[in-house]
Parts: sequence; structure tokens; C-alpha cells
Amino acid sequence: MTASRTALAACLLAAASAVYAQGAPPPDRVIGYRQSVFGLIGWNFGGLGDMVRERRPWDAAEFTRRAERVAQLSQMTDEGFPPGSDTGAATDAKPEIWTNRADFDAKMDDFRREAAALAAAARGGDQDAIKAQFSKTGGTCKACHDEYKAD
Amino acid sequence: MTASRTALAACLLAAASAVYAQGAPPPDRVIGYRQSVFGLIGWNFGGLGDMVRERRPWDAAEFTRRAERVAQLSQMTDEGFPPGSDTGAATDAKPEIWTNRADFDAKMDDFRREAAALAAAARGGDQDAIKAQFSKTGGTCKACHDEYKAD
Repeated sequence: MTASRTALAACLLAAASAVYAQGAPPPDRVIGYRQSVFGLIGWNFGGLGDMVRERRPWDAAEFTRRAERVAQLSQMTDEGFPPGSDTGAATDAKPEIWTNRADFDAKMDDFRREAAALAAAARGGDQDAIKAQFSKTGGTCKACHDEYKAD
Repeated sequence: MTASRTALAACLLAAASAVYAQGAPPPDRVIGYRQSVFGLIGWNFGGLGDMVRERRPWDAAEFTRRAERVAQLSQMTDEGFPPGSDTGAATDAKPEIWTNRADFDAKMDDFRREAAALAAAARGGDQDAIKAQFSKTGGTCKACHDEYKAD
């Protein structure tokens, strides 16, 4: 029990980020969190794009794995933009996110829905349907970036 | 079609990281990738720890959601340590990862397995079982950090 408690404590200390028990995490942590989420989305979505654009051979298993990861990560954006996280570290998130929240949230919901549909299409295996859904998902990225992400 | 292609291109350009079509991504990108994965694991595992240690009220739905995210993210470590990514940006990953690879891989497999078991325990709802599995999962973090992560 002592050993397991020690292991637990060490693991928690070693964690790269920690959720703060007393109140909300500070803005710099939140900004780092969301940048990590979007970085991983970009990593995987880029891998999908390489296959769609035939820069790499189509690999159905890899496509499905990456599409599922994008869908999983799209859900993790839910913690990325709490009130007060508009400043606190370098960020490309525009202030309009917090002043036009309903529209921003609707656009994020669009992305999550289309990302889930992309994972489902990937599992279905029809390349034309997959490519169409990839483009539709990309459109939801662009719709949000155009208004809410600094260039 | 043109609009959708434009949206697609813009989205890909906007991606925070890109997988490189020609050969492997450069080491600094890989290092950023793995730091993002582990940062998100820490974010969620810290949230679990706060509940286990009763620093926050138990929230079964949140616990399950975070445990599932840890399990999903544990799978994403698979791309984090390719050969050649031992240097290229600031990293806490020790060189022994690449010189003692079979042991490192086994320890990562331990983590993935126990993280999946933690998500399953969370869905099961038995708090004693969940807490025991949380500690077991934390032990797999520590086992790997002790040998392969710089303090």
C-alpha cells in the first residue's frame, strides 16, 4: 500500500500538466492544453490529408486510426476555452471567441459532429464517401479559423 | 468543389502540426507531438487523482470521461518515440529509450493496458476497484518515468 501510494504520488508529480483542485487551472495552463489538443488534431488531420491528396499511398487502417483520433481529440476541445483564458500566454485564439460565444460553440459542435462522421466514414471503407467527408470536416476547421484564429 | 478544395487547403495550412509526406517528420515536430500527448495525459490523470485523493467531490461521469481520454491518449504515444527523435528540441526523454527499446516498449504497453483497464473500471462504477486500478495505472507511469524520463 505504501509502495503503491508512493508510485501514485510520484506519477502525479511527474505529470506534465495538472488539473487544479482549488478552482480553475490558470490561463497559461489552459492555453497550453488547447494548443496541445489542436496540435494533435493537426498532426492526425495532416496525415489524413496526405492520403486524400495522394501524397502517400492509401492505408485504410491508418486512415481509420487517425480519423478516430481526430474525433476523440475533437471532444477534448471542450475544456480549451473557459472564460478568462483569452490571455495569459501567447495564443492565436481571438477575443471574439469569448464575446461571440454561442457562434463559436456552434462552430466547434459542427467540427465535432463532422469529425465523428469522418471516423464513421473511414470505418465504412468507401473512399469516395471518405474523401467527401474529409473535405466537409476540413470546412468546419476553416469556418472556425476564419473568424476565431489569428493568422 | 472549388470552395471545398479551398476550405480543405486552408484547413491543412492552418494545422498546428503536419505529418510529412516525404519521409519522417523532423525530430522537433516529433518531440512537440509527444510532449502534447503526455501533457494531455497529465491533464486528465491529474483530474482523476484529485478525485481519488478527495481533493474534489467524486463525479462518476467526469471520472469516466477523463479515464477514457487517458486510455485514448495512451494509444497516441505509439508515434512519439521514433528512432532519431532523441534530440532536436528540449526533451526529458532519456537516451536509454532508444538503447533499451524492448524494455521501454514493454513498459509503454503496460501503461496502455492499465489505462484501458482504468477506463473499464470507471465504466463499471465500483469506486474501490476504480481507486485500486488508478493506483496500478499510476505505477506504470512511475515505472517508465524512473528509467526513461529526466527529472
